[in-house]
Amino acid sequence: MHFASDNCSGVAPQIMAAMVRANEGQAPGYGNDPLTSRLTAQIREVFDAPEAEIALVPTGTAANALSLAVLAAPWSAIFAHELAHITRDECGAPEFFTHGAKLVPVPGAHGRMSPDALRAVIAAHGTGGVHSVQRGAVSLTNVTEAGTVYTAAETAALCAVAREFGLPVHLDGARFANAVVATGASPADLSWRAGVDILSLGGTKNGCMGVEAVVLFNPSRAWEFQLRRKRSGHLLSKHRFLAAQMSAWLENGLWLDLAAHANSMAARLAAGLTAKPGVSLRGPVEANLMFTTWESGLHDRLRTAGASYYSEDGAGYEGARLVTGWSTTPDDVDRFLALI
Amino acid sequence: MHFASDNCSGVAPQIMAAMVRANEGQAPGYGNDPLTSRLTAQIREVFDAPEAEIALVPTGTAANALSLAVLAAPWSAIFAHELAHITRDECGAPEFFTHGAKLVPVPGAHGRMSPDALRAVIAAHGTGGVHSVQRGAVSLTNVTEAGTVYTAAETAALCAVAREFGLPVHLDGARFANAVVATGASPADLSWRAGVDILSLGGTKNGCMGVEAVVLFNPSRAWEFQLRRKRSGHLLSKHRFLAAQMSAWLENGLWLDLAAHANSMAARLAAGLTAKPGVSLRGPVEANLMFTTWESGLHDRLRTAGASYYSEDGAGYEGARLVTGWSTTPDDVDRFLALI
Amino acid sequence: MHFASDNCSGVAPQIMAAMVRANEGQAPGYGNDPLTSRLTAQIREVFDAPEAEIALVPTGTAANALSLAVLAAPWSAIFAHELAHITRDECGAPEFFTHGAKLVPVPGAHGRMSPDALRAVIAAHGTGGVHSVQRGAVSLTNVTEAGTVYTAAETAALCAVAREFGLPVHLDGARFANAVVATGASPADLSWRAGVDILSLGGTKNGCMGVEAVVLFNPSRAWEFQLRRKRSGHLLSKHRFLAAQMSAWLENGLWLDLAAHANSMAARLAAGLTAKPGVSLRGPVEANLMFTTWESGLHDRLRTAGASYYSEDGAGYEGARLVTGWSTTPDDVDRFLALI
Amino acid sequence: MHFASDNCSGVAPQIMAAMVRANEGQAPGYGNDPLTSRLTAQIREVFDAPEAEIALVPTGTAANALSLAVLAAPWSAIFAHELAHITRDECGAPEFFTHGAKLVPVPGAHGRMSPDALRAVIAAHGTGGVHSVQRGAVSLTNVTEAGTVYTAAETAALCAVAREFGLPVHLDGARFANAVVATGASPADLSWRAGVDILSLGGTKNGCMGVEAVVLFNPSRAWEFQLRRKRSGHLLSKHRFLAAQMSAWLENGLWLDLAAHANSMAARLAAGLTAKPGVSLRGPVEANLMFTTWESGLHDRLRTAGASYYSEDGAGYEGARLVTGWSTTPDDVDRFLALI
Repeated sequence: MHFASDNCSGVAPQIMAAMVRANEGQAPGYGNDPLTSRLTAQIREVFDAPEAEIALVPTGTAANALSLAVLAAPWSAIFAHELAHITRDECGAPEFFTHGAKLVPVPGAHGRMSPDALRAVIAAHGTGGVHSVQRGAVSLTNVTEAGTVYTAAETAALCAVAREFGLPVHLDGARFANAVVATGASPADLSWRAGVDILSLGGTKNGCMGVEAVVLFNPSRAWEFQLRRKRSGHLLSKHRFLAAQMSAWLENGLWLDLAAHANSMAARLAAGLTAKPGVSLRGPVEANLMFTTWESGLHDRLRTAGASYYSEDGAGYEGARLVTGWSTTPDDVDRFLALI
Repeated sequence: MHFASDNCSGVAPQIMAAMVRANEGQAPGYGNDPLTSRLTAQIREVFDAPEAEIALVPTGTAANALSLAVLAAPWSAIFAHELAHITRDECGAPEFFTHGAKLVPVPGAHGRMSPDALRAVIAAHGTGGVHSVQRGAVSLTNVTEAGTVYTAAETAALCAVAREFGLPVHLDGARFANAVVATGASPADLSWRAGVDILSLGGTKNGCMGVEAVVLFNPSRAWEFQLRRKRSGHLLSKHRFLAAQMSAWLENGLWLDLAAHANSMAARLAAGLTAKPGVSLRGPVEANLMFTTWESGLHDRLRTAGASYYSEDGAGYEGARLVTGWSTTPDDVDRFLALI
Repeated sequence: MHFASDNCSGVAPQIMAAMVRANEGQAPGYGNDPLTSRLTAQIREVFDAPEAEIALVPTGTAANALSLAVLAAPWSAIFAHELAHITRDECGAPEFFTHGAKLVPVPGAHGRMSPDALRAVIAAHGTGGVHSVQRGAVSLTNVTEAGTVYTAAETAALCAVAREFGLPVHLDGARFANAVVATGASPADLSWRAGVDILSLGGTKNGCMGVEAVVLFNPSRAWEFQLRRKRSGHLLSKHRFLAAQMSAWLENGLWLDLAAHANSMAARLAAGLTAKPGVSLRGPVEANLMFTTWESGLHDRLRTAGASYYSEDGAGYEGARLVTGWSTTPDDVDRFLALI
Repeated sequence: MHFASDNCSGVAPQIMAAMVRANEGQAPGYGNDPLTSRLTAQIREVFDAPEAEIALVPTGTAANALSLAVLAAPWSAIFAHELAHITRDECGAPEFFTHGAKLVPVPGAHGRMSPDALRAVIAAHGTGGVHSVQRGAVSLTNVTEAGTVYTAAETAALCAVAREFGLPVHLDGARFANAVVATGASPADLSWRAGVDILSLGGTKNGCMGVEAVVLFNPSRAWEFQLRRKRSGHLLSKHRFLAAQMSAWLENGLWLDLAAHANSMAARLAAGLTAKPGVSLRGPVEANLMFTTWESGLHDRLRTAGASYYSEDGAGYEGARLVTGWSTTPDDVDRFLALI
């Protein structure tokens, strides 16, 4: 009953098998191997983006921070939801990689920004000439940190606001697969066709061991990206093992199958919780994570029984963040529900 | 016949098996798992250093640059051999992680610094009061980039020079296992007992998939190290797979067996090359890499036959860097020699 | 009728005379001159702080950003009012000098933070372990950007909140002289006795040509400060001219006389504005700047008549920021009022 | 008898008078004043460069480091003479402002690089693909740190080497006026017509109080420069006093008169020293500074008599750096010589 994070799951068996297969003989390092070339072709095909450049890194934080560094100058503002992972959960990685850009929080219920809210915040910044930080970039997250999703149309509307100000758009897609499944949109419609310039495509949370692909739909800064990746220690020498993971993940739609399973486990969990008296969900459950509140005292019982999750308590109630993953079983869910 | 780098080898079978075994069920992320705890205990035991703090990262560049960042201020000089990996092969990673420290090259034949040369360079820097960068740290490399090694006594002599100036010492041990085998010294004698404060202990080049352990013999800055690691995107969520690799690598002395094999393949190769007319080694072969020169024209023949390596040609001759690894076979060596 | 900024005023005649006097013969550079020594003694006496270390820089932005850089690590949060100069008006200088610290805004009416608001914001940050930026420092501003002041007791209460979390305190005193006059507190009571660790003591806005003194009440990081000052290009070679300005400024209480004049001109202006129908002040006027609103159309008339100031218009009204300085005359004020 | 530095001199009387004159009434801050506009026109005329953009800063270190920051990426190498001020005397300011670029020393006698030496060093760097820092920029110094000068033709030859590699060129002209006088070249021939992209034009060492003009002959990055200047705290609010200094300095060729005087005092000193037995000059004296050696014991006598200078002693001899300035008198020189 691990609901702490989708990264508590291990590696999907098809992916582990691919890694074992990749371990044959010797291969050139640093991405100059056939598996990396193959993966590049796969990603371009999945996204219908034959010009896109791809770079693999081992963590989502690296993917996000490197992406922002090629989009935003050190003296610029990056606009993102106030709950965004880049704002709250990366120990200042964007500031480090961008050499000091400022993350400006955009409010919005359930982890989502509205176009109007985004426009208002952007408009209020960068108006002081040389005295203020300049408008730099917009960063979206889909699935959001609150477990909601943006549809392709909603993504396009937010990108359109960025374009009003001439700003490029980054998309943190640590759970992009779950968003694709949740919205039914194509990967292209949910990214570059909506106006996204650069995507952190997350594999780790959804069945890989540790790999994220940065997809540069606009390849003009791909060489700079590679230099920044090397300079930050994120160019892995035995690169074939990164490529093998993600290649197997994409193969035959495995990534979507894994995400669909995680989403369905979340739906099962949400349905069960909703039926419980004294338990409420703090927002819509659209992908594979949710936030709940219940009366105090339940944490003890659940944890004693072996459940793990992050608690977010408030005055007079207990709160929990519950995340399902590719390896969550119906039995996990049902046993958890039975304890409540 | 891959002699380009020890990172062209794959993953040793015992290590891959351990990774597969680690993929059971779910586990807490970010190093809060039992495998990581076990590895920490193993490293402390191998180094006879019960107080040491350990941090795992996916690349040697990250290990080195993070280590230097906790030792050296942004306004300081880091003294290292002019051929050091940190100086030539990391695209400025030390400058990035330290926020601008200056790498000052120390000359020396065959990749080695002498204590006198190190002392002379340190003494010549940092004498300008507030106008000059301050003396910050010394970084050693063992095995050196030229394929030579420092004995424990030589390491201690260099660390003693650092101590004359009050400077801490980092040791880039991307091939530390090969140095341990080559010198016969204990891991402790070759590191903290000689005066090393922080060690980049390399697993990747010697049979792992992608893991380096930073060993902080002085644990006072361990928390800062962890923050810097997270902030630079080097804290992997599915951390158990890093720990599993290195744990298996250390288990039953596998790391030293793999290194001993690589070193012996290098000795076999060196012996064969020495016997060839027109071929000369550019320095002593003490571990698992060497530099050779031979008459022009040989590159073509070797590469046509399937050999791979880096060339370093000069006026009127061809040069090669030849590296052996844990997976190099006697047959690889003999076929290569037969072509010359 | 210049009400745009107190930095539109020139140099007070006593200060210009001192600069001319300082221009005799030759003198050692970089602060090793007698005038700098004398100024150090003066500041220590004015602040009753014989241990304090002093460093002069040419701008308030440099004073603030360097101060924050010695207090706050790159991975830390700096808590400051949402209108603070460091947050809005320095083009990211704090982020540049600190190598990426995050400025966290604290809300509060009229430019002031309450202890409770400060405590709430600090408490809400830095709770994510290695994943979140760490609590770093608190930065106060007195006179605030809104023209209000903190008394000595209010300053002490805010510093006490910082101490609850073990955080050091910076005070942006670009208009510190005006705050001393407004509160009637001693310089010591308004700074280190209240708990301030480091003060940006502004001379430029109050009659100097361009000099700010950073006063390090805790001198333990004075050498680091000097290195950071040099490294950022803020160590002036002909340093005696910085010292001469500020020495004359402090001599015989000139700094307080100039500030008292500026404050009194603001009071005169505020009184006059309050008496005008259709004009309102947006907050208390406690020092030498104020914010007003009036009906649309007035800007044109005032500017045609030669008045200068920054406008801050809203829907259906015009707004203005009006700042008085040491050289503002009663006639300036009265002519301005007569136009309304 | 101050020969320590040309910054030990004060402010030339014409310049101080202009500063006093500038102190009339109020003026807009941050460079939006008539004196700054006038100075911009003057510099464009002096350099025959009507498109050039100008930015004033208070120190040479700021001028150099900001210039390099707009020319060179963080992951690049800046090629400069091994004695360059940016390399040895700025406490790592270029590394700070560029976010970690690497200064690569070019050897050469008497502070000068030859085109061949420059070409060889550039060619040896940046050859490692993504693993090595990239070639970024060339920085020249004229007058050099050794007191020699580059002619316009020599400057052009060095810039041509930079162009072979597609690199932009910065010129540290802290003593540019002395170089103009020494070579007889026009300011344009000694800068942009030779291929210089950006010039640090030094006023401070040559009679100003503290002002350097950065001249961007290629104005395409002028806005970025302004942002970097503000962000580093180098945009002075009472900007008219910077402009007034440099405007008076350029007026009627005062800058060249002051430099000619300094150079002639150096020639007088060099001639006198050459005539002394046991005294030798360590290089040609072409502008206003020189390096000498003499037998041990002389330092004591000279300093007791009131002479000041930097000593650079070696084994068995004493050495001195002697610098003349606009305020050095023939009597200073002759009294100094008489002591030897």
